Amino acid sequence: MSEENIVYIGNKPVMNYVLAVVTQINGGVSKVCLKARGRAISRCVDVAEIVKNRFITDIEVKSIDIHTEEILNNEGTATNVSAIKIQLSRKAN
Amino acid sequence: MSEENIVYIGNKPVMNYVLAVVTQINGGVSKVCLKARGRAISRCVDVAEIVKNRFITDIEVKSIDIHTEEILNNEGTATNVSAIKIQLSRKAN
Repeated sequence: MSEENIVYIGNKPVMNYVLAVVTQINGGVSKVCLKARGRAISRCVDVAEIVKNRFITDIEVKSIDIHTEEILNNEGTATNVSAIKIQLSRKAN
Repeated sequence: MSEENIVYIGNKPVMNYVLAVVTQINGGVSKVCLKARGRAISRCVDVAEIVKNRFITDIEVKSIDIHTEEILNNEGTATNVSAIKIQLSRKAN
């Protein structure tokens, strides 16, 4: 079993998250899982693509999963929001 | 070989695209491919989730692919933009 680290993508600049992922991979982690909800989903895909194409070329997108999460807002009503999970892992040599 | 239709997701309201997909499926098409770039990626995931959870329950996400596309802007310089392709297809009975 190899360790897995999760990076939650929010509203900060893309490069913050790219740096977080690159730091983890260079620290010896072999798998990183990117998670995002709602409008951050586009940024999540950007992070995966930028890490893969510009920083760590021996990484690959292992799996992409989309699903719906229920969020309770301040008034106590539930809203549905889409979410994405992108698994990145080092290619086996 | 079954026919495949493509729905490009842009900046219109989500429900326009949901309707487009539902119309195609109900018209007898067994596979629909959703494509989006840049910020429309989040909306693309919304469309897939809404169709699957609320309208056509015997549909499934067959594959999700992310990649980078190069766009030439007005000044002739190239910019990279992330893109997503979500394949929806009817479950085999």
